Amino acid sequence: MDFQPSARILDLCGRIREILDRDVLPLEPDFLTKGFDAVKAPLDVVRGKVKAAGLWAPNHPVEYGGMGLDLVDHGLVSEVLGRCPLGHYAFGCQAPDAGNIEMLHLYGTPEQKAEWMPRMVGGERSCFVMTERDNSGANPIFLKTTARREGDEWVLNGNKWFITSAPGCVVAFVMAATDPSAGPHARQSVIIVPGGTPGFIVERNTPVMGHANTDLFAHCEVRFDNCRVPYSNLLGREGQAFHMAQARLGPGRIHHCMRWLGICARSLELMCQHASSRVIGEPDRRMAESDIIRAWIAEAAAGITAARLITLYTAWRIEKVGAKEARNDISMIKYHCAEVLQKTVDRALQVHGSLGMTDYTVLAYFYREERASRIYDGPDEVHKLAVAKRVLSQGGKL
Amino acid sequence: MDFQPSARILDLCGRIREILDRDVLPLEPDFLTKGFDAVKAPLDVVRGKVKAAGLWAPNHPVEYGGMGLDLVDHGLVSEVLGRCPLGHYAFGCQAPDAGNIEMLHLYGTPEQKAEWMPRMVGGERSCFVMTERDNSGANPIFLKTTARREGDEWVLNGNKWFITSAPGCVVAFVMAATDPSAGPHARQSVIIVPGGTPGFIVERNTPVMGHANTDLFAHCEVRFDNCRVPYSNLLGREGQAFHMAQARLGPGRIHHCMRWLGICARSLELMCQHASSRVIGEPDRRMAESDIIRAWIAEAAAGITAARLITLYTAWRIEKVGAKEARNDISMIKYHCAEVLQKTVDRALQVHGSLGMTDYTVLAYFYREERASRIYDGPDEVHKLAVAKRVLSQGGKL
Amino acid sequence: MDFQPSARILDLCGRIREILDRDVLPLEPDFLTKGFDAVKAPLDVVRGKVKAAGLWAPNHPVEYGGMGLDLVDHGLVSEVLGRCPLGHYAFGCQAPDAGNIEMLHLYGTPEQKAEWMPRMVGGERSCFVMTERDNSGANPIFLKTTARREGDEWVLNGNKWFITSAPGCVVAFVMAATDPSAGPHARQSVIIVPGGTPGFIVERNTPVMGHANTDLFAHCEVRFDNCRVPYSNLLGREGQAFHMAQARLGPGRIHHCMRWLGICARSLELMCQHASSRVIGEPDRRMAESDIIRAWIAEAAAGITAARLITLYTAWRIEKVGAKEARNDISMIKYHCAEVLQKTVDRALQVHGSLGMTDYTVLAYFYREERASRIYDGPDEVHKLAVAKRVLSQGGKL
Amino acid sequence: MDFQPSARILDLCGRIREILDRDVLPLEPDFLTKGFDAVKAPLDVVRGKVKAAGLWAPNHPVEYGGMGLDLVDHGLVSEVLGRCPLGHYAFGCQAPDAGNIEMLHLYGTPEQKAEWMPRMVGGERSCFVMTERDNSGANPIFLKTTARREGDEWVLNGNKWFITSAPGCVVAFVMAATDPSAGPHARQSVIIVPGGTPGFIVERNTPVMGHANTDLFAHCEVRFDNCRVPYSNLLGREGQAFHMAQARLGPGRIHHCMRWLGICARSLELMCQHASSRVIGEPDRRMAESDIIRAWIAEAAAGITAARLITLYTAWRIEKVGAKEARNDISMIKYHCAEVLQKTVDRALQVHGSLGMTDYTVLAYFYREERASRIYDGPDEVHKLAVAKRVLSQGGKL
Repeated sequence: MDFQPSARILDLCGRIREILDRDVLPLEPDFLTKGFDAVKAPLDVVRGKVKAAGLWAPNHPVEYGGMGLDLVDHGLVSEVLGRCPLGHYAFGCQAPDAGNIEMLHLYGTPEQKAEWMPRMVGGERSCFVMTERDNSGANPIFLKTTARREGDEWVLNGNKWFITSAPGCVVAFVMAATDPSAGPHARQSVIIVPGGTPGFIVERNTPVMGHANTDLFAHCEVRFDNCRVPYSNLLGREGQAFHMAQARLGPGRIHHCMRWLGICARSLELMCQHASSRVIGEPDRRMAESDIIRAWIAEAAAGITAARLITLYTAWRIEKVGAKEARNDISMIKYHCAEVLQKTVDRALQVHGSLGMTDYTVLAYFYREERASRIYDGPDEVHKLAVAKRVLSQGGKL
Repeated sequence: MDFQPSARILDLCGRIREILDRDVLPLEPDFLTKGFDAVKAPLDVVRGKVKAAGLWAPNHPVEYGGMGLDLVDHGLVSEVLGRCPLGHYAFGCQAPDAGNIEMLHLYGTPEQKAEWMPRMVGGERSCFVMTERDNSGANPIFLKTTARREGDEWVLNGNKWFITSAPGCVVAFVMAATDPSAGPHARQSVIIVPGGTPGFIVERNTPVMGHANTDLFAHCEVRFDNCRVPYSNLLGREGQAFHMAQARLGPGRIHHCMRWLGICARSLELMCQHASSRVIGEPDRRMAESDIIRAWIAEAAAGITAARLITLYTAWRIEKVGAKEARNDISMIKYHCAEVLQKTVDRALQVHGSLGMTDYTVLAYFYREERASRIYDGPDEVHKLAVAKRVLSQGGKL
Repeated sequence: MDFQPSARILDLCGRIREILDRDVLPLEPDFLTKGFDAVKAPLDVVRGKVKAAGLWAPNHPVEYGGMGLDLVDHGLVSEVLGRCPLGHYAFGCQAPDAGNIEMLHLYGTPEQKAEWMPRMVGGERSCFVMTERDNSGANPIFLKTTARREGDEWVLNGNKWFITSAPGCVVAFVMAATDPSAGPHARQSVIIVPGGTPGFIVERNTPVMGHANTDLFAHCEVRFDNCRVPYSNLLGREGQAFHMAQARLGPGRIHHCMRWLGICARSLELMCQHASSRVIGEPDRRMAESDIIRAWIAEAAAGITAARLITLYTAWRIEKVGAKEARNDISMIKYHCAEVLQKTVDRALQVHGSLGMTDYTVLAYFYREERASRIYDGPDEVHKLAVAKRVLSQGGKL
Repeated sequence: MDFQPSARILDLCGRIREILDRDVLPLEPDFLTKGFDAVKAPLDVVRGKVKAAGLWAPNHPVEYGGMGLDLVDHGLVSEVLGRCPLGHYAFGCQAPDAGNIEMLHLYGTPEQKAEWMPRMVGGERSCFVMTERDNSGANPIFLKTTARREGDEWVLNGNKWFITSAPGCVVAFVMAATDPSAGPHARQSVIIVPGGTPGFIVERNTPVMGHANTDLFAHCEVRFDNCRVPYSNLLGREGQAFHMAQARLGPGRIHHCMRWLGICARSLELMCQHASSRVIGEPDRRMAESDIIRAWIAEAAAGITAARLITLYTAWRIEKVGAKEARNDISMIKYHCAEVLQKTVDRALQVHGSLGMTDYTVLAYFYREERASRIYDGPDEVHKLAVAKRVLSQGGKL
């Protein structure tokens, strides 16, 4: 066993961290108090610098302008970028585009790839249109939106919600029932719908945790009203959507968990720094002298370190045996890391007292927005049941 | 021992609940997605109905137009009102006014009371100006804002923050050092500063959890710049501010804890209703059939019931032996109830999945805004240390 | 609402505590290191003193020599006695006899009562024979031991286990299937089997947590091999066993939960005293100065106080509306109090370090033996599911 | 990074597991109900087989008859052996001998090694004599036992306790103050005291969790009463004991944590198997169908996997950068793994219900005996404070 990352990735992470600290973090305060629109223009400047530095799209194929890192290495990058909510966007590897690009790369026809890969890897936004309000994506057999074939066209009808990054996207990957009478996992297909297609209507940006966000950060209610696209916009084969959605999740999980651990690292640092500077008693007694705070720091340190190793291990497993074989690990890191995330951020906020409630630190943002970590891509409880089923079938052997 | 509330208070609570459900709850969706300004006018209509029904200001003195309930009974009312973020405002017993009114009633001169009590009990807003950014109210010996006597005037200078309800308030109760050289607990006095006094400047509404709120819901940064008020605006005696602030906390704690338990009751109901209606499998398997969800419901039910009893017990103790004698109980319910609150709301949100993240239910509001419950009026950890000190001094006897 | 216990019960508790501290606690060290046999003789002397002081059998009917306390008052007594593992025995109100006496008093014929009540209330031991190894008492429909009627006799056959207090008992109350073809809750009856009846065989004392205990503290494997008793030994009516067993649980729950809270009170005191005396640094820094320990003390103090109130509230409810109506409360205190118990004892042990692992304090005993609290009388999880079912049926209303 | 153990160690672990399952596990029931004495003779036969198979003393130097595995590989072996309380003894790598052998190998003179290494590696028992009742080993500056030089002899006086494996040991390594006036970390030395030396008195085996165990499993109170040994029995240099004790802890921590994870693996398997076979409802509903149990299984699976990786990572770090540089990791795995251990065993026991309380499964043994894991080698809280201190000094960076 060898726990040493390669010298190359350590060097890359160092260079990425440098740009993040110097160019992205200074934009964070405006993002927190004024929203994404306020930082979009300067962020685009940063994106240019990142491309110039050869650090763009670390996870995407080299042939389309990315760096082609493997999952372990991109995990380490994602951890660095996770320190700031703007990190992944600045370096061209933000969700949901990352997953869409992977999916298109795996399943697209040469024509589809030629049309969309350069634009998407280049930084234009896409969305993944799956979840319905009354029918969660956790169990796609309940999804009701349809794509009916008429001649050489698909006609889409139905309502979707929580569609991240929908407003202004250049292309949408839509999961729709093409054969509602088929077996539960063969009903749905993925259809490519260009932004602006008539009948593809973004109804509104859902207010989430007090905000209707915009752009990449918007979660939208979307309606398809006799929306027509060519039959050739089918991605992969008919009925394959369930399997494509599953395939998206493995690498995406690594991306998310390592991002969460970047959030944890940042939160722990903020917690330590605030506790070290805050005077809570005379003469000059600092909050960091309290054993309660120290216990929190120590528990965070161990929890983060262990969560990091199980995530990197899972990345290594996916590379080695494939996402299917590693699906138990992929489920485990979901709920394991999400718990470390919530606990670490919560305690960091608590150490900051009323300051922690404000948008003068990033902690209130992490606290409320990343609450979604226990929900998206399948609630933790769904993953726990999936893991338990497998462990039980093995008589408890891991 | 007799755990039966009086018939009178049960009847009152029933009538209050009726108005809350019929007139206040329908305003909640607009409050959640558009803010307090969007509901202020209709809420004022409700306030009129509440007054007409004789249910106004349940905790305040009868002589000024309140109902004069004791702490146990007002606790039960606060629990009902806590079900909706607008409840206390609609019935004229919202913080921080409630505490300010109590303080003024206890310490004010006849002239001060004649001037402010009718307006404040009547529903005009006040604020309590204590906390400073670098010097939390948890330890007032560090507060730096001063009130210097010049002839028959006070001259106030300094910066405060997290001043709830500051914009548009008719009067402020300001804690300021009148004798910085005195002993730590005798340095501060409370000065009454009418809204609009020159030099009393609300600099901005601090963005909290993504919002710079308004009105009653704003937490403000406030500056005193040679702000002058008459010497007779001193509340109580010089150097008495620390003790006044302490005295504010006992009844206020009952108010808050019972309010939190109202939030818990509402959250548990939303959790049960959503779990009962949400289909998660075929044929028609509901989320409520999962034992995981059931365990959460059962743990919430017991936790809420126990927390409710310890809070009502504390109210009873304050009435019987006084807040000073009951100070250990007052500290215990702070952290005990805040934990029940956070856990219950968190799980209710989780049951709602992505819907729980949106502002289409009140849970996302409770989740982010009530995170402050573990911080305001002294962080939980401060209360724990205070309790432990006393328990240790008693050799562990409760 | 009135949270004040009566003057009479406070006086009684004071007198009981005095005897407990003076006469029972000194026997504890021998009990812990040498077992029950080593203290049985001196305990019998104490029992005599208790009877002489008029404090015997606080919960049992006055007509049979008990004190006839109601459930709230006996709860307060049980809390005092719970401080020492020998307390309930010394005062004649130990399980399982307490429940057996209640059951006999409620369901027995005059002849049955005349025969057994004086002996049992007087202090002779009985047992309750329900659980089977492969068929837990939690769901009696699975119990397989039978009582077949032959003429005017019952003939019992089958195996039972975890029969507390079986060796040397004067009488056993045996749950056996008298009509296996009846509905699930009407299959079982309770048969009275005197100790020493041929065919009633105590096979062995099951080793539990490292010990095969003796006497009252033994949990036994019992076999019925054509064991014959008169038909008149039927308690209550045929098929009524399920309901009798349920009826036993309400008052028994109060007894147990208040006993656990007595354990908690004792553990908290030991924790405080050890932490106050143990030097962990120079110069003379005590363990009690660590905020970690202080947080534990404060959490225990609040948790115990709240658990105590919900238990007394449940006792009051049973007295007022009956065990059936209060069954949700009865279930809630089971898992709520058992959790407080386990956490408090665990932390008290931790504070004692290696000393806490030894039998030189009672904590190691509490830690291992009271682990059963989460299991007996139905595992916590079963109670949680029962509570959730009712709460869900009420739409989440408590 | 490469998470793949070597083919050699996987093969070795397979062979070790085979002997463990075939020859050691069958002895466990007698050990649990009758004690170590009942299995000592058959265990010695197993030890012979192990030696014959070339699997003896996996962690010890090849030159003395061991296998010389590195820390990562021995960690994997320790995990396998941890499945049964008798595993390490059967394979000649049990504590406290393992640590003593390491210490002697590092610090002993050629003569000392020649005298003791063959016997100790060969399987004879030794003990490490540090802790005092009133002065824990966690802070050796408080230890009071002295070794006074008289001519060419040491004269030892003082009381020790919790001396594991003292009765019948062939040699003791005794920590005693040789210069009480020196700096805190230079006061103590380690003296080699052969078993049977006059004045080296094992006073009694402390009853721990209900038992005064014997032999390897005894924790003893030991007295030195003018016990004389030659000056040449000094191990290492005078004043070096503190550093030797520290050096013992790094590799010992790997040994213990991986052993705990072996316990967890066994407990999880028992939990799954019992839950799969236990019927809790009709028709044939198994406990394993409950989502509560499934959530426990899933949380255990992830927790064990992550804890395993952080432990193996720490082993790798010790090998790579040394125990001193890795001391933060060594502290972190202590409390991180101990928590996983306690939670996993507790839940496995709960799933077994009353059976889990008995000695018919190994779980009750794990539950009570391994409670010590959070205490020995420094309580978890001490390690947390040490970690926090370092993390704070790094500004929160891990």
